[in-house]
Amino acid sequence: MSSSEFSVIDEFFTRNFSQGLSPALGIGDDCAVLDVPKGKQLAVSTDTLLEGVHFLPNSDPQLLGHKVLAVNLSDLAAVGATPVWASLAITLPVIDKVWLSKFSQGFFELAEKYALQLVGGDTTCGPLSITVTIMGLLPQGMRLTRAGARPGDSIYVSNTVGNAGLGLEKAKAACTDIVDEALVAYLSPNPRIELGCKLLGLASSCIDISDGLSADLNHILKASGVGATVSHESLPLTQAVRKHMAQDADWLWPYSTGDDYELCFTVPLDVNLDGLKGELGESITKIGVIEEEKGLRIQTKDGEQIILNKGYDHFNDKWNAYI
Amino acid sequence: MSSSEFSVIDEFFTRNFSQGLSPALGIGDDCAVLDVPKGKQLAVSTDTLLEGVHFLPNSDPQLLGHKVLAVNLSDLAAVGATPVWASLAITLPVIDKVWLSKFSQGFFELAEKYALQLVGGDTTCGPLSITVTIMGLLPQGMRLTRAGARPGDSIYVSNTVGNAGLGLEKAKAACTDIVDEALVAYLSPNPRIELGCKLLGLASSCIDISDGLSADLNHILKASGVGATVSHESLPLTQAVRKHMAQDADWLWPYSTGDDYELCFTVPLDVNLDGLKGELGESITKIGVIEEEKGLRIQTKDGEQIILNKGYDHFNDKWNAYI
Repeated sequence: MSSSEFSVIDEFFTRNFSQGLSPALGIGDDCAVLDVPKGKQLAVSTDTLLEGVHFLPNSDPQLLGHKVLAVNLSDLAAVGATPVWASLAITLPVIDKVWLSKFSQGFFELAEKYALQLVGGDTTCGPLSITVTIMGLLPQGMRLTRAGARPGDSIYVSNTVGNAGLGLEKAKAACTDIVDEALVAYLSPNPRIELGCKLLGLASSCIDISDGLSADLNHILKASGVGATVSHESLPLTQAVRKHMAQDADWLWPYSTGDDYELCFTVPLDVNLDGLKGELGESITKIGVIEEEKGLRIQTKDGEQIILNKGYDHFNDKWNAYI
Repeated sequence: MSSSEFSVIDEFFTRNFSQGLSPALGIGDDCAVLDVPKGKQLAVSTDTLLEGVHFLPNSDPQLLGHKVLAVNLSDLAAVGATPVWASLAITLPVIDKVWLSKFSQGFFELAEKYALQLVGGDTTCGPLSITVTIMGLLPQGMRLTRAGARPGDSIYVSNTVGNAGLGLEKAKAACTDIVDEALVAYLSPNPRIELGCKLLGLASSCIDISDGLSADLNHILKASGVGATVSHESLPLTQAVRKHMAQDADWLWPYSTGDDYELCFTVPLDVNLDGLKGELGESITKIGVIEEEKGLRIQTKDGEQIILNKGYDHFNDKWNAYI
């Protein structure tokens, strides 16, 4: 750890929260040392966000600090884990103290909401890139996976889909309206931690929608060895997304746009979600049914059926079939 | 996870070892799920290696796969932890299957040596950069830290110092002699996992030498609130390093060069290391003594004393005082 690196971590990334599970040894040594409580399993996930790929150049640092943590928290939500610790590897072109102050503010505001403690870090000099490794706790033997969907299960999504995709279009068009619903969804997503935790023991499978509904639902179908039919009419969409679809005459658009960080999950028919719905801050909507016949079918109200077994390819910047 | 990303992880980074602690849920889901055995604590560390900063452009991918894991294992060695799991976030300019095959070969050859299992990954498209988060186990309540050195303790280093620094000079000069001792030390370092584990309960402090002996020993001194005198004559140096120092007339050179990934540790006077020395594959050498008076003093055989309270600064590419 060099002098500048030490200063960066010390000045911007060392916070003591009154809540949460403090590490036995925290930031500043070669390793953090952590106690996993008895009866709990550790859930771990890593995601990188790279300027120009996952966020636009010159993004607002405070929103970026929020988003890089939100994206990783969303992976914990998808398995039903409660956040506890994270490490942050950040590559910076220069040490810009104003930027770092805002970035860390966005990061820690969200961390504090979940009493998440930052336990390790690495700072390097290069093109802006941020990798978070996030750790959460699960009750022993309980977790949501992609692999448990069975024919007859209902398919749900939280909140709406396509909202963040529209926000990305607006951000690219230099929109800075900070109360625009789509822009906020893109720049400042809310990980569905509460929903994920409540789905433990209820949902048969779960995933977070990071690469688009069709790509991510296809992951569930492939891992579970099943197929599905989604009723297009039931898809929860904002008015702005409906307008965008109409303008572009592209009704498949909300299946392909990523970055929503909502949960898509399946629930056996005999599970009653009424109690859950009343407790949540966000809506959940049934959008389809799991079937034996493989593949993802989108059914319109006119009876038209589209097969959508595709996902977005970061490397080739195009749609690729993958099942 | 997009189609290409899925293929990269599936094709190159999914291995099942017969040994090691298998995750309850491994690569391919949103999170890995891990069981930390009873009576153990988890040690976690994250390091990024970036092309052009931490390794030369067009580095051999197999050696790079080894090195990126070795650098992270070295952080576990510094706290005395036994490696168990890792996650790998890799940013690639293109999907080059030959490169990926060699990189993963180098990575997994070293992983297998320690029965380390890769439990998670993220693949993104951009300038070549690799972030590993490594996890190891410690017996409950036992760990090496930087903060325990006390006046009177002896200071040791493993193997030699400056060797990898000389290797970097040779690599920059396009030397490809794969049996050259310095070049091998730079390109393919051996993390001192065995030594770290054996030092639990013996050493009062420990660090791995990644940024150079003076920078890293200064971390111990600062964390422990002490100073030290190092006897220059006792420094373990290869003949090639001695020759390089003589050529450049720079006898302070081995204190500043990084990348050695040897351990520097302190041991109370009443601890006998004879048994340990016999068991190890590498040598350990006493180089100095911890003292109450703060600062790092280098003592030559002529009685000259140099104060060396400096570290290398990745961002400013120069030496900066930091204590």
